[in-house]
Amino acid sequence: MLVSNKHYNTIWIDESDPGIIHTIDQRLLPFKFEIIQLKSSEDTFNAIKNMIVRGAPLIGVTAAYGIYLAIYKYNGLENIDSYIDNVAKNLKSTRPTAINLEFAINKSVEAIRNETLIQKKIETALQFANNLKNEELENSKQIGIQGLKIIEELYKKKKGEPVNILTHCNAGWLACIDYGTATAPIYLAHENDIKVHVWVDETRPRNQGARLTVWELTQHGVPCTLIPDNTGGHIMQKGLVDLVIVGSDRTSINGDVANKIGTYLKALASKDNSIPFYVALPSTSIDWNISDAFNEIPIEERDEQEVKYMEGLSKKGLDNFLITDENVNVKNYGFDITPSRLITGLITERGICKANKKGIEKLFPEYF
Amino acid sequence: MLVSNKHYNTIWIDESDPGIIHTIDQRLLPFKFEIIQLKSSEDTFNAIKNMIVRGAPLIGVTAAYGIYLAIYKYNGLENIDSYIDNVAKNLKSTRPTAINLEFAINKSVEAIRNETLIQKKIETALQFANNLKNEELENSKQIGIQGLKIIEELYKKKKGEPVNILTHCNAGWLACIDYGTATAPIYLAHENDIKVHVWVDETRPRNQGARLTVWELTQHGVPCTLIPDNTGGHIMQKGLVDLVIVGSDRTSINGDVANKIGTYLKALASKDNSIPFYVALPSTSIDWNISDAFNEIPIEERDEQEVKYMEGLSKKGLDNFLITDENVNVKNYGFDITPSRLITGLITERGICKANKKGIEKLFPEYF
Repeated sequence: MLVSNKHYNTIWIDESDPGIIHTIDQRLLPFKFEIIQLKSSEDTFNAIKNMIVRGAPLIGVTAAYGIYLAIYKYNGLENIDSYIDNVAKNLKSTRPTAINLEFAINKSVEAIRNETLIQKKIETALQFANNLKNEELENSKQIGIQGLKIIEELYKKKKGEPVNILTHCNAGWLACIDYGTATAPIYLAHENDIKVHVWVDETRPRNQGARLTVWELTQHGVPCTLIPDNTGGHIMQKGLVDLVIVGSDRTSINGDVANKIGTYLKALASKDNSIPFYVALPSTSIDWNISDAFNEIPIEERDEQEVKYMEGLSKKGLDNFLITDENVNVKNYGFDITPSRLITGLITERGICKANKKGIEKLFPEYF
Repeated sequence: MLVSNKHYNTIWIDESDPGIIHTIDQRLLPFKFEIIQLKSSEDTFNAIKNMIVRGAPLIGVTAAYGIYLAIYKYNGLENIDSYIDNVAKNLKSTRPTAINLEFAINKSVEAIRNETLIQKKIETALQFANNLKNEELENSKQIGIQGLKIIEELYKKKKGEPVNILTHCNAGWLACIDYGTATAPIYLAHENDIKVHVWVDETRPRNQGARLTVWELTQHGVPCTLIPDNTGGHIMQKGLVDLVIVGSDRTSINGDVANKIGTYLKALASKDNSIPFYVALPSTSIDWNISDAFNEIPIEERDEQEVKYMEGLSKKGLDNFLITDENVNVKNYGFDITPSRLITGLITERGICKANKKGIEKLFPEYF
C-alpha cells in the first residue's frame, strides 16, 4: 500500500544486490518510517525476535528469506546440512507460537535439501521465499475481493454515504505483505471509489490500532478515526457503525475465533445493535484439529510490563513510561474467543461462509 | 479509607486554623500522595478547575468550603452580597456539567443570605459545608450497607472463596468523601472479613482505574488486579468474575444509566455470561426529569489530546507522551448509556431496586 504516495510491500529483495532484503522497522511506527536492511540470517532472526516485523504472514516470509540469506552467505567450512538445521532451529525459536513460521522454515529446508549444488540451493531458497511472499499477497487480495462484495452492498443501501467500518488491532498490510486481511476489503473498496470510513480501536495494551492501523490507513488515504477500545458500543448504539471486520489468530473448525483481546466485546455490541460482524482470515489460520475453541485454544498470557508501561514520544524522544502504581497486580491476556453464534460470516480467500463446520467444509472440503 | 495505614477523608478542615482546608492532590496519584492546603475561594476554584479534586460528590463539598473560605476571608470593603454572588458564579463555572456543584453552591449562598452578622454568615457557611460532607459520607455508607448483602450472599455460595468483583472507572472514595459508591460495598465486605478481589478496568482514555482505583484499593488493603478495558469479556467467559458493580453519572427514571464510556460493553458481557451487573448510586444522581436516556442525556465529547497523549512517569519525571500519529482524527466520548434491560439492580442509599420506573418509585415515592 502507499506510504508518502509510494507503493510498498512489507518486505522485498534489493534490485541490484541479492544479498540484501529490505523491510520496515515497525517498532518505530507511527513516529518514524524507516527501511532497514537484512543482510544475514542473524538479521532476520533479530527482526522477528525484536518485533521489527510482526504479523503471522510477514513473520513466515521473513523467516523464509532468513534461510535464503543463510545459504547465500554460506562460507563452505561447515557441513551444509547441519549449518542449515542450526539456522532453522534458531529462527523457529524467535516466536514459538506462530504456526506458519515453523511451516515456512520446514518447507524451505526440505526444498533446499533436495538440491546438491550450492548455487541450486541458493536459487531454490530464494524461489521458495519469493513464492511464499506471492502466495500471502494473493491470499490477501482474494480476501479483499470476497469482502468487497459486503461493502459494495452496504454502500448501495447507504446511497453514496460512506460505509463506516470498525476494526480492532492491526490485521492490516503491515501484518502481511500487502492489503492485509481485515483491511483488504477496505483497501479494495477505496481503490474502487466506494466511500469508506474506518473506526480504529486503539487496542490496549500494545496499541496496534493507535500505532499501526491508523498510520497505514492514513498513509494510503483511507479516512479513519482513532477511538479508545471503550468507545465501540456507544458509536454502534448511535448508528455510526455499518460493519465490523476483524482478523483472526486462530479459528476452530466450528467457527469460533481467537483474536486480539477485546474482540468478543465488540462482537457482543454488534449483535446487540444488529450490525454485521465479519472475520477475515486466510485458511492457514484455521486450526483443522480444534473443534472446542474455549478449551483447546491456549490463551497467551503476556508480561505485566506491557500494561504498566507505555511507549510514547516526549520532547526527549521515544521512551517507556509508567502509567499506574508500579507494584499493582496485572493480568495481561493476549486474546479472547468470540463464539461463532456472534459472527455473521468468515471472509476467506475462497469465499464467504457461515462461521460453522458446515460453512467451512463447503469451502475447504479437502480438510474434512 | 486508609493511606499508608492512616485513615483519611478526601477533604477536611484544619484542626487549629479554621482558615485552612486540606485535600489530596489527585493529579499526582498514584505516583505521589500529597496533601495540599486550600486557603481561599480562589484555591478551591483552582482545585476543581484543574482537577486536583474530581468526582461529583467531592466537587460539591469542595465548592461549599470555597464559599465558606470566601466569607472567612472577607475584607469588609465590598458589598457582601455581590461579593458572595461573584464567588458563587466563578465556582459554578469550573465544571458546568456537574449538577451537584450548582446545587451545593446555591444552597450555601441561600443559607448565608439569611444571616445578617458576618460572624453568623461564617458559621452558617462552615456548618453547611460540614453537613454536606457528612451527608455525602452517610450516602456512601448506606450504599455500602445495602450492597454488602449482595456480596455476602455470593460469598456464602462460594463457600469462603474470594468474591471476584469487576469495576470500571473510579467510583471510589476518592470521588466522594469516604467509601465511594461502587466501592462502598467492597470496603464494607473487606471490613467484615469477607474475602473479595477486585478486577479494575484501566479505563481509557483518562486511566482513572489504573491511576486512582487500584491505588485506593491497594492502600486500604483490598486485593485487586489491573486489567486493560479489553479484558473483561474474556475473564467473564472463564468464570473469573462473580459480580460487576459500577457507578453512575446520571440515571434516568426508567433505569437507564449514563456512566463512563465502556460501561455498556461490560454490561453486555455480564448478560452473556449470566453475571449480576449492579449500579451503585446516591439518589442525587437520578435525573427525575429524564425518561429517555438515549435521546435526552447529552454525551460529553472531550478533547482529542486525551486520547493522543498520555501522562506517565519516566526517569525524567511526570510528562505527557504522544502515543499515536499526531495528525490522526480522534473521537473521545466521555460516557455511554447502559440500557436498564442489562442491569440487575440499582444499589441506592435507601435500598436495592430494579432498574426501572416501578423499582425507583418504590424507594423514592416523593419524586413521582
